[in-house]
Amino acid sequence: MPAVKLILEYDGTRYRGWQEQSNARSVAGELRRVAESVLGVAVELVGSGRTDAGVHALAQVAHLKHRGPRIPEARLRESLNDLLPADIHVLAAETADERFHARHNARSRSYLYQIAIRRTAFAKRFVWWVRDPLDVTSMRESAEGFVGRHDFAAFCEKPAEQASTRVGVEAVRVRREDDLILVRVVASHFLWKMVRRLVGTLVEVGRGSIRAEEVRGLLEDGAGRAFDPARHTAPPSGLFLEAVLYPGDGALPALRPAFPVRASGRR
Amino acid sequence: MPAVKLILEYDGTRYRGWQEQSNARSVAGELRRVAESVLGVAVELVGSGRTDAGVHALAQVAHLKHRGPRIPEARLRESLNDLLPADIHVLAAETADERFHARHNARSRSYLYQIAIRRTAFAKRFVWWVRDPLDVTSMRESAEGFVGRHDFAAFCEKPAEQASTRVGVEAVRVRREDDLILVRVVASHFLWKMVRRLVGTLVEVGRGSIRAEEVRGLLEDGAGRAFDPARHTAPPSGLFLEAVLYPGDGALPALRPAFPVRASGRR
Repeated sequence: MPAVKLILEYDGTRYRGWQEQSNARSVAGELRRVAESVLGVAVELVGSGRTDAGVHALAQVAHLKHRGPRIPEARLRESLNDLLPADIHVLAAETADERFHARHNARSRSYLYQIAIRRTAFAKRFVWWVRDPLDVTSMRESAEGFVGRHDFAAFCEKPAEQASTRVGVEAVRVRREDDLILVRVVASHFLWKMVRRLVGTLVEVGRGSIRAEEVRGLLEDGAGRAFDPARHTAPPSGLFLEAVLYPGDGALPALRPAFPVRASGRR
Repeated sequence: MPAVKLILEYDGTRYRGWQEQSNARSVAGELRRVAESVLGVAVELVGSGRTDAGVHALAQVAHLKHRGPRIPEARLRESLNDLLPADIHVLAAETADERFHARHNARSRSYLYQIAIRRTAFAKRFVWWVRDPLDVTSMRESAEGFVGRHDFAAFCEKPAEQASTRVGVEAVRVRREDDLILVRVVASHFLWKMVRRLVGTLVEVGRGSIRAEEVRGLLEDGAGRAFDPARHTAPPSGLFLEAVLYPGDGALPALRPAFPVRASGRR
């Protein structure tokens, strides 16, 4: 069965997430509808992972397998884009090995979070605007504690539903660029709402309302905690699935904004 | 009468332009309504110039004069932003000389135009997507011919209403960045729709449907022309008032996108 690897960007604002649902509009649902209309047959469509309602993607990866006509990839891509809603775009369609599986073969995912330090007329849908002053240095220092293999149960929605809440975080970066604070987290996989709770917790560190040592404590197994990351879940608007890496892929590109917020010199 | 210099950014999509109108929503109309509500008196509000319906601003400048209470500029800015619609934002409010006039004192304006060479899921409101391949080198060469003092009547809507259609263009830049072509035009002032017609004409040059010599001919006085720039007016979505310069202001910052369109390697 022909397999096609798709790379997609989408503005998640209008969608109830990537995953298909019976009563709500989803990105995968729109893509399946359009793909089946172009190919004239039912398709197997699997993404590298779910993105939640309102979360965006700069480069989600999915595979498409079907028994329909073999259409050259460039033309398939154009046909999909001609029919897709304006807020979903297929960046690339490539022939893949029949056994290629977008989720199982992915070796790591990278998420980008955009915190705006001021109100913005343009980028509201693509940032979390935090009014309080944030100490980027302490956010960065605290974020470095996430790197490595830890139990992220405290940062997971419904941890009991997970086979394991241990995750290997490969890299974290926190960087100010103009009036944005960018946070990148790279890991083999992510738990539900994990990135938004890591970012929500880092913002509390930046505000000075939780200390770096307390954050480290959240990664250790056990007892009651004064600080509950679930109460500090960053909104989906600032979150982008930035890249999905497969064996043989090169390094991630340099960290830069999905949408810049120009420096105004004022908050 | 206290005078305040305001620097504003706005997403022009929902507005019938900067200028106040009796039956349509305008940026200046929203700003006046909010300013009069904050100050409790009628205000004089003058922008550096009009922007047309759908055109955006990264840094429009306006002055506000009033006989109301003297509010510290930082607090005035916050009060305005608390009440303004989400797509208009006051970046700065500064005390100005009583004689400061946002339009009369401006010595030059800079506009940025964003041409996207591919469909984009995020930036549709902020670009003109041109499907045909464009030759950036010939666009750049042709654009250099605009620099200097010329008669831009061919690029002006209703030239008969102008005192003069001669304009001194200080600088033009054309640059590819990822999947955008950026065009910057700096001039003492602009004629109605001038930037959009310059850009529309450059796109025709990039497509190969008009030669650079023909473009030069459009800047000379006189006779009938085969090419009519009015038929090639670029849409307002891609246009941003980028900066307004006053005596004593420094140089323009480096040219960069208002909203990037990441390179996909495909169109």
